This record gives sequence, C-alpha cells and structure tokens, in this order.
Amino acid sequence: MTERLRLKKNADRRLKAGHLWLYSNEIDIQATPLKTVEPGSQAIIEAASGKPLGIAYVNPHSLICARVVSRDVNVRLDRSLLVHRFNQALALRERLFDKPFYRLVHGEGDLLPGLVVDRFGDVLVVQLNTLGMERLAEEVIAALDKVFSPRAIVFKNDTSGRRQEQLEREVTVVHGELTEPVLLEENGVRFVAPVLDGQKTGWFYDHRANRAWLNALVEGKRVLDLFSYIGGWGVQAAAHGASEVLCVDRSAEALERVAENATLNGVDDRVAVGEADAFEALAALKADGEQFDVVVLDPPAFIKRRKDIANGERAYARLNREAMRLLGRDGLLLSASCSMHLTTERLVECVRGAVRHQDRHGQILYQGGQGPDHPVHPSIPETAYLKALGVRVFRD
Amino acid sequence: MTERLRLKKNADRRLKAGHLWLYSNEIDIQATPLKTVEPGSQAIIEAASGKPLGIAYVNPHSLICARVVSRDVNVRLDRSLLVHRFNQALALRERLFDKPFYRLVHGEGDLLPGLVVDRFGDVLVVQLNTLGMERLAEEVIAALDKVFSPRAIVFKNDTSGRRQEQLEREVTVVHGELTEPVLLEENGVRFVAPVLDGQKTGWFYDHRANRAWLNALVEGKRVLDLFSYIGGWGVQAAAHGASEVLCVDRSAEALERVAENATLNGVDDRVAVGEADAFEALAALKADGEQFDVVVLDPPAFIKRRKDIANGERAYARLNREAMRLLGRDGLLLSASCSMHLTTERLVECVRGAVRHQDRHGQILYQGGQGPDHPVHPSIPETAYLKALGVRVFRD
Repeated sequence: MTERLRLKKNADRRLKAGHLWLYSNEIDIQATPLKTVEPGSQAIIEAASGKPLGIAYVNPHSLICARVVSRDVNVRLDRSLLVHRFNQALALRERLFDKPFYRLVHGEGDLLPGLVVDRFGDVLVVQLNTLGMERLAEEVIAALDKVFSPRAIVFKNDTSGRRQEQLEREVTVVHGELTEPVLLEENGVRFVAPVLDGQKTGWFYDHRANRAWLNALVEGKRVLDLFSYIGGWGVQAAAHGASEVLCVDRSAEALERVAENATLNGVDDRVAVGEADAFEALAALKADGEQFDVVVLDPPAFIKRRKDIANGERAYARLNREAMRLLGRDGLLLSASCSMHLTTERLVECVRGAVRHQDRHGQILYQGGQGPDHPVHPSIPETAYLKALGVRVFRD
Repeated sequence: MTERLRLKKNADRRLKAGHLWLYSNEIDIQATPLKTVEPGSQAIIEAASGKPLGIAYVNPHSLICARVVSRDVNVRLDRSLLVHRFNQALALRERLFDKPFYRLVHGEGDLLPGLVVDRFGDVLVVQLNTLGMERLAEEVIAALDKVFSPRAIVFKNDTSGRRQEQLEREVTVVHGELTEPVLLEENGVRFVAPVLDGQKTGWFYDHRANRAWLNALVEGKRVLDLFSYIGGWGVQAAAHGASEVLCVDRSAEALERVAENATLNGVDDRVAVGEADAFEALAALKADGEQFDVVVLDPPAFIKRRKDIANGERAYARLNREAMRLLGRDGLLLSASCSMHLTTERLVECVRGAVRHQDRHGQILYQGGQGPDHPVHPSIPETAYLKALGVRVFRD
C-alpha cells in the first residue's frame, strides 16, 4: 500500500496553484510521520481534509521533503510515465529546433522534478539532482534508451543540489560508450563539449537565444568575453564576424577548448585567450588602455543561496562598473546573471549604477532569459533563473 | 537670462540616479516659484544647495513639471542638439536593422522626453507628447529634414499624453506630401500602414522581435489573432506558413487593411477576418467548437492609470482564461500586455490561473519585451512597458 502524507491546514494552497514542492514544515506529522517514509519512495499527498492531491517522491531529510510527479494518484513515476514525459519534451524541442542539440528535460519545467537531460545529438548527459530521481536511475536509463536509442548516456552527477540531498558525487558513462569527442551546434557554430569534465553538463544551452541576439551585432567589432568557459559567446561572435575576440577565463583547460573550438570554426586567427581572474583581467586591461566595442559578462552564479544576496549584488555591481570602463565611446554591454536570487530589477540597477558612475548614457536594448528548451513552470518562480541585458553605453 | 528651478532638499536623488523627470511637489517654490515660469520654456534645474544639475523643459501645469533634456547646463534643446540626438538614434537603428522601418526616437529612452518618431522609409510619423516638445515643433521638423530629407513628415498628435498637457489633438502632414500609401516591412513581411487614421503612429514596431519568435513556430498551424488591428501578427503568421489564420477586431476599417495586407503578401487565401468584440468572439468560437493551435492575445492597454490596476488585472485574467479554452491538446498561447502598470509577474499569474483553471499544464517558453528600437532607460522604469509571454499549453 502506498504511503500517504497529509498536509497541514491551508498548506495545500501552493500545490493547488500548480507548484510541485512541499516543505517539511507543511506536513501534518502527527497524522503522517514524515520520518517513517522510506527515503526516495513515492507517496500520495493529501489535503488536511483527506482529499488526495497527487503523487510525490519523498526525501524526509531534505527541506523540500516532497516533489509532485503527478496529479493523478493512480499513476506512479515509473518507466512508462518517464517515456511519456520524454516524448512530450521531445515534441516541444522538435518544434523549436532543427538539430538535436538542446536541453531535453528541464526538471520541474518539464514536470520531471530533479531531472536534467542535455542532448548532444546521440549523446545524452543526465543529472539526477534529488534522491527521488536517483532511486529511478535505472528507469531513467531504460526510458531514455527506449525513446532515443542513444550512443551513450552520461550521468554527470556532481551538482550542488545532490549535496543537499546527501547524494554521492559521480560522473559515469552508464550506457553505451564515449569513444569520440562530443560535438554540438548552436546558432550555426560548432563546439566540442567536455561532457565528462566540463562545467555542468559540459555546455550551457540556456543562453542560445541571447547569444543569437548578440551575434547579429558583432560584425567588425572588438569583443571581450569574460568568464568565457569554452567560448560559447566569444567563438560565436568570431564566427559571426567579430574582428577580434579576447576570451578570459581562469581555467587553462577551458581556454584550451576555446582554442579548439575556434579552430573547429576556422576563426582561430581572430580569437585570443587570457588566463586570469576576471577582476584582475579587467584591471590589467584598463591599465593597458585597452578598449572594446562589446563586452560580455556571463559570470558563474555569485548568489547561490539567499544569504549571499547582499554580497552577490555588490559583486555584480562591481563587475558591471569595471567592465563598462573598457567600452569605447559607443559600446555594447551584454550583462548576464544565472543567479535565481538576483532579480532583473537588481541587474538593471547594477547597469544603471555603472552608467551613472562614468557619467555615460545607457539604453537597455534587450532583456532576455533562458531559452525555450528551459521552460519556466508558471507556478514555480524558482524555475526562472537566467537574465541577460543588452545595453548600449554611449557618451552624449 | 535662463530661469532656474530649485529642488527641495533630497529631491535631487532621482535626478542624480539618472531619471529625467521632476514632479511639481519637488520644487522649492519659495525659492523659485514654479507658476511664473513660462510654460514650455527651458530652465536650469539646481539642487537645494544651488548646484546646477541640468537643463529641463517646464510645464508648470503638469504633474511632471519638468523633463531634463541635458546634464550640461550650457546647452539648450534646440535644432543643433536635436540633430545630434537624431544622429545618435539613427546610428543605433542602422546597427540593428537592414531596412529603414523602425521606431527612430523613443522619447526618454533616446534622451528626448516627449518625442516619438516612427520611420516608414522616407516618411516620418511624429508624436509631440508634451508642451515642451510642442514648443519645439518647428525645430523638430527642421532637424528631421536636415538628417533624413524625408518625403513627408506627419504629426500624429492625438495621444492621451497630450490631453494631460492640455494640448490640442491634431493630425497633419507638416512637411512634404503624402500622395501614396505608406509601406513598411517587418520580419520580411510587407504592410500598408495607415499613418493618418490608424492607431498610434499607424504601426506597432515594438512587437517585432516577439512576432519573429512566434513566426518560427506557426508553420502548418491554425492561428487565432485577437485584437488583430491591421494584421501584424496574423498576416505575418500566414506569411510564415500558418495553414489558416483568423484575425478578429471590432474595427471594420482595420479588418479591411488586414485583407489588403494579406493580399500584398499573397496569403489572402489563408487569412480570414471576423468583426467582433474580442470577448464575444471567444464565446462564439467556443460555442462553435472551434480549436486553434496558436492563439495571439495582443489587447490594447487595459490599465492606463494606476487606479485601473485591479479592474485591468481582472480583464487580463479573464481574457487569458477564455482564450486558453480554444487551444487544442498541445497549443501555443502568445499573451501580451502593453500596460506599463501590469508587471510581468502579474501576467504570468494570469497565465498560471488560466492553466490551472482548465487542469492543463503550462510551460513559459519565452518572455519578451519591446524591441531594441524602443530602448529602456535604465533609470526610468516607466520606459519599459511591453510584455509578451510564449506559453505551451498541454494536457498531460
């Protein structure tokens, strides 16, 4: 018999509004002790009245103690439902994209809490971010195999989300073999993706549309790509006609891949790399009197948790201020943030402060978010995290 | 000698942060009586300390009693500065677009408070929305003539902003002649723009990027374009391969132009029109069992003033709820709002409510704003007004 978890009075509101998460303090533990539920198992969630609301997988040791996987209490998240959800996810991506390079499953946004799958042609890179999803690992592999018959499936299970769920860190090829480099194409530019040892799944598909926006404006321009990683912005800019690109990152490995990706697209003569901390690079470039037509700021999340907000906002403000000093008389700043806790308003505020600090003028031309293969769940504000502002900065 | 307006203590904060507006209750009228300032004249704005902050044009009878036109107190907004600002505005648009069809001047966003200019090739349509700008009418014409040598300049001075500044309503060809229909091209599709008797300047360039996003997803789809006006969304969808489009508007004149624009693009066999109130049309289509793959909701502003917020939000919610009922099993909703007072969060809430109301699932694939020829001033939140959500709506 399936376990049940009963909610406290009025604790069903968020669920009824469409959210998928339950917090441990919302459970009526007198009626249904949370601690006795088998970690990772699926339980029926019921309102204080006893009315069943849906099925969720449970982790009694996590702040988010349950995540809803279906509103229908007669189903379970199993191979069959996974296959159904993968087909739904695939139908969307095939409508959006011509080629099989995209985020295939975006967790809650695709009604699969805790599961991320990025697709690189016939290689699938999976992140299982919760205990409930970890318990379904074999079913996930089987369902992916059934729908996609992939050459290889990689579990890139080294996320911070796993730490919070007390899960081990591990990166494994769990299906097939990875004998050749993994390639992808984005906005007509090709890249080698380090799916085993790169950041996240190896690539950040979420900026695709924002990069496309910038690509249209870089012809003949000198571009600085800070926090370049393997060259997502910089190599694309070069491939779209930038006259000169400098990619700065503090990882020598990432920069080797920038060079490799530049060569792959025949733009290695226009892409240079610099190994440095971003703030140190900004200071050094300023000291050398360097100027750029376009500066791209796509830093890692400066705000990972709510308590980092104040420090993180200061870091974003400083970054935007110092980067803007390197822009020429009529320049373009692409200022991004992947911190869910940084609001768009605050990022605009960073840009505004930087513009005023230098007595320049700013025009926000573009406000982008994550691409459509990273769907936002309308009831879960937490699923919207990415911001990208395109700002013209000029002197009057 | 130039008039001066002194601010009350601390009333300079917003200006220092980059904003361009002053409210009448921020003036120290003991030191500098507002009432004696010649309406429409330019004055030096100074802080409570006497420090000069910039030049503004003044309307003592308006809530926003002054709008800054320069931080440099040694210049005035005159023909010469207008020419300079037009050239700055043009430089941006020429970088953004291949063809001369765009908003050329977007008021405060282009550092020209109260002035809007839309460009249709060699025809310029101008709106002077404030008394200060009205007084510069001749200079605006001369400066536009100098920079663009247009075939015609139209003053489309029938905006609600003018009423608030107690200005007359008038539509006039003030320069050159309008002997032929005015044409424009957007996203590769051609339109005839009713610049003399249409809505606003005749066309809404602000949705260009949002329409481009939708255009990529309509091939073979059945599309409903509610509040169609002259077919911006609907005719573009047909031109991008939609199998069938229904444009609904309550203006027979607008629908005649839909037909004209459909013919112009060779898609008249796939574009039908319906003259009706939008809510009545939704009810009738539902009663007839009609279904669509894509529904576009681009209503006029339901919230014009702060006091309309509650009623307006209810109208947006109802519109989204009733429109969603017409979507097929796996449909796409494009839900827009041009109400500055409706936040993105509230529009998401309307969509969320509609999705839950029908026990469907929603995925927000896209969150767009106004196009880059409608630049947002980073210090003036009021310059950001347009929202467009692209939402997949499906049953599990």
